[in-house]
Amino acid sequence: MATLVHTATTSGTDIAPSTLSAMPSNGNTPEQTVNSSTRSTRKIKHCHVFATHSQQRTSCLTQGAETPSFLGFRNLMILVLIVSNLRLMIENFRKYGVLICIRCHDYRRDDVKYGLLLYLSVPCHLFIAYMIELAAAQQAKSAVARMKKAGEEQNTPEKVAAARRSFNWSWRIIAFLHGVNSSANLLIATHVVYNRIHHPGIGTLCEMHAIIVWLKTASYAFTNRDLRHALLHPDQSEPLPEIYASCPYPRNINWKNLCYFWWAPTLVYQPVYPRTERIRWMFVAKRLLEVAGLSIVIWIASAQYAAPLLQNSLDKMFTLDFVSIVERVMKLSTISLFCWLCGFFALFQSFMNALAEVMRFGDREFYGDWWNVSSVRAYWTTWNKPVTNFMRRHIYNSLVRRGWPAMYAQVAVFVLSGILHELLVGVPTHNILGVAFAGMMIQIPLIFLTDVIQKMKGMGGEVMGNMIFWISFCLVGQPLAALLYFFAWQAKYGSVSKQYQESPALQFFVRR
Amino acid sequence: MATLVHTATTSGTDIAPSTLSAMPSNGNTPEQTVNSSTRSTRKIKHCHVFATHSQQRTSCLTQGAETPSFLGFRNLMILVLIVSNLRLMIENFRKYGVLICIRCHDYRRDDVKYGLLLYLSVPCHLFIAYMIELAAAQQAKSAVARMKKAGEEQNTPEKVAAARRSFNWSWRIIAFLHGVNSSANLLIATHVVYNRIHHPGIGTLCEMHAIIVWLKTASYAFTNRDLRHALLHPDQSEPLPEIYASCPYPRNINWKNLCYFWWAPTLVYQPVYPRTERIRWMFVAKRLLEVAGLSIVIWIASAQYAAPLLQNSLDKMFTLDFVSIVERVMKLSTISLFCWLCGFFALFQSFMNALAEVMRFGDREFYGDWWNVSSVRAYWTTWNKPVTNFMRRHIYNSLVRRGWPAMYAQVAVFVLSGILHELLVGVPTHNILGVAFAGMMIQIPLIFLTDVIQKMKGMGGEVMGNMIFWISFCLVGQPLAALLYFFAWQAKYGSVSKQYQESPALQFFVRR
Repeated sequence: MATLVHTATTSGTDIAPSTLSAMPSNGNTPEQTVNSSTRSTRKIKHCHVFATHSQQRTSCLTQGAETPSFLGFRNLMILVLIVSNLRLMIENFRKYGVLICIRCHDYRRDDVKYGLLLYLSVPCHLFIAYMIELAAAQQAKSAVARMKKAGEEQNTPEKVAAARRSFNWSWRIIAFLHGVNSSANLLIATHVVYNRIHHPGIGTLCEMHAIIVWLKTASYAFTNRDLRHALLHPDQSEPLPEIYASCPYPRNINWKNLCYFWWAPTLVYQPVYPRTERIRWMFVAKRLLEVAGLSIVIWIASAQYAAPLLQNSLDKMFTLDFVSIVERVMKLSTISLFCWLCGFFALFQSFMNALAEVMRFGDREFYGDWWNVSSVRAYWTTWNKPVTNFMRRHIYNSLVRRGWPAMYAQVAVFVLSGILHELLVGVPTHNILGVAFAGMMIQIPLIFLTDVIQKMKGMGGEVMGNMIFWISFCLVGQPLAALLYFFAWQAKYGSVSKQYQESPALQFFVRR
Repeated sequence: MATLVHTATTSGTDIAPSTLSAMPSNGNTPEQTVNSSTRSTRKIKHCHVFATHSQQRTSCLTQGAETPSFLGFRNLMILVLIVSNLRLMIENFRKYGVLICIRCHDYRRDDVKYGLLLYLSVPCHLFIAYMIELAAAQQAKSAVARMKKAGEEQNTPEKVAAARRSFNWSWRIIAFLHGVNSSANLLIATHVVYNRIHHPGIGTLCEMHAIIVWLKTASYAFTNRDLRHALLHPDQSEPLPEIYASCPYPRNINWKNLCYFWWAPTLVYQPVYPRTERIRWMFVAKRLLEVAGLSIVIWIASAQYAAPLLQNSLDKMFTLDFVSIVERVMKLSTISLFCWLCGFFALFQSFMNALAEVMRFGDREFYGDWWNVSSVRAYWTTWNKPVTNFMRRHIYNSLVRRGWPAMYAQVAVFVLSGILHELLVGVPTHNILGVAFAGMMIQIPLIFLTDVIQKMKGMGGEVMGNMIFWISFCLVGQPLAALLYFFAWQAKYGSVSKQYQESPALQFFVRR
């Protein structure tokens, strides 16, 4: 230290600012001072007196300070999830050996046959809906022609009433036909999946396909009903959205328009959608690579880690050893969270963007930033925008318009959503336990709880709301529901995979 | 569905916007449209034709889109860390029972005695530095008086040279005294900790205290040297920072000013600091509660989880079973990350803010948002601002000023930092392995690597840089270093805790 003599002779040294900027400073940077010293060459700059603490500042984690970005923690979280799951996979590998096995899956030939049949038959209901609309459009066209023929006749109140009666009468017939068609779709698919398709994976795909087409059919019917009403009662109607101007009713009732809606990544029918200029095939390729990569990751993680874990949990479930069940659910929560995040990204970001790109579909808002929500309500309106958009346009707004209080309309949306969730989980696993339905119903009190909590300003209510969301959804809800359906499945059938059929716990359940 | 007949009679229903806003929409909200329908009461609003997809939008996770906030993932990460550690604590509790035990710690009476002696003796070196500066200030004052007495005499070049020689000559003596004083501080403390204090916890506290006082002494000496130089050569010097104006040299060399610096949460001496108006005692109480709570959490987590885990890893270390070591390090990484984050928050946010509040110290920037860094360099300049400020002002800038290339100056900073890290870890554990020093040296190539990577724009270079930082630091560096020092400790002494002394692995190492 005695050698650190600071002589004036070195003070004029020219230092390029770029080399100094390697060590970024805060507030008054040394670069500025060095630069000014090179301007007035003979003045000595005393670097040891530099005022490091020149102003009042707060720590960035202190409440009330400007919140910093937490992007780094997203990366850390991804790493922690990968590392902790990888470690448990190593552990399981040492215990059980390689559990990943393509040929071990004993799906039956019948499963594939019925799955293919459903895959081909379900979209037919969309074409039937198209036929119904085609007829309705014909009728509307002739009604317009009659109105034109009547010419400049004054629209007396009696005539308006007659027109309304006529519209409502024909809509009742059309609605009845649509109802029969779409209900048939859902009933047939559910019947086949529940009774004929044993494999839960194939069953889930078929059921999901049927529900998607069911929602699309409903949206197609509702939207065209309103478009027809607007055409027949132009003086009573508010103007339609500007974007529809390029394809007015009934020109939208055509084969090409229907096929676009069939494949477009949305559940909400519009005659016209915002479109992109061209297809970026590199973008499509990258997204499809992501889908493939993530699917493989999810498959490996569930085969090597989740499956033996679920298996291990069975006897604890049976003996109702509470502390052990909690421990198992906690252990499951990491892998279910991992699979959930991978699956969400693969489906909503990668797959939907690839599909949208191929369809030149412009509105890619398939999800919002649901990971930041401070209320369970916000989660349900941001994580799955296609379904939210459907529910808002065709259920919630429609009910509110008919005079329902907003809260009742929301409950109705959750009831419908709960039924669809139960169909999606309970039917393919052949166990209509009601757990998925109950899970959706529990959301309603949770919404009121987090709505109250997030408003508690001073006490970090938003962070608390977000924590409650994560705990309820990813750390308790999902793994517990997975455990219950797996347990019920095992109790009824034993495993889908041949490897476990000698498990003593399983033998017990099968013998039951 | 056939009952969903939309009649015009319900279209005039008044819906309060507040109830609708419960379901937030994007773009054109239904509220707007409902409001406009209530204005022109007789027009029918067709809710089923609402243009949900009215414009082109991108998914918020798509590259190039405006990056959303990831605050929620910070919360999820905290939860995942808590849950996964809690689960492993339950597992360990079932295996080993309660391992948390206050009386099991066999620190020796001598450890406490020497610890207390060091706690009292170390600050004395700061007072000796004060004495040295008091004498230097006296000398400077008389020099100024002589200069004043010489009156309006012209400052000839010879006189300037003579004054400079005189200053340098007296600075050599002062620097020698400071050097002896501060070196004695570090040497005595290191000697006592290494040879007399067996307990690693007490040893670490003592060594850290000595290093802090050593750095404070150095900053005090360097800063006052430059202030003195500026006083004696007012015509050659750049103006001092404005904030120092209220306490010019040599008025700052007084007992109260020194005591403030002694307790202020900074390692950089300034005659004047930005100060807050008053002490918010509630703020202090909250911060101290955080310190207490987090300390207990860290203690429980390490006793119940980290200790048996380290113990389990010993035989794997001995047999050099590589896959097992990797698995152990991965398992350790979760708990070490957890303890690190808790410890960081407790020390840098809670403790330092409490101390700063009591001292009315205004500049609370004790850390930056190091979790977002995309380069290892940025990490080292943001996570520990007190040390960074010291290194930048007294080492880096000083060396650059003397003509060192910026890169060499950075290497010098890392070498010094490595020595201090080794003192802090190697001395209290009585094993100067050089791992901590090597860990700091490895940062230099890592810095160059991440500097290159973070500039790769198109390929998410910043995210990759951030990942490399997390992997190198939290997921590999820390747990591996902890394992190595723990292994060396066990090999030399056996456990600090009585419970493990019958461990067969330990018996082997002790017998060695």
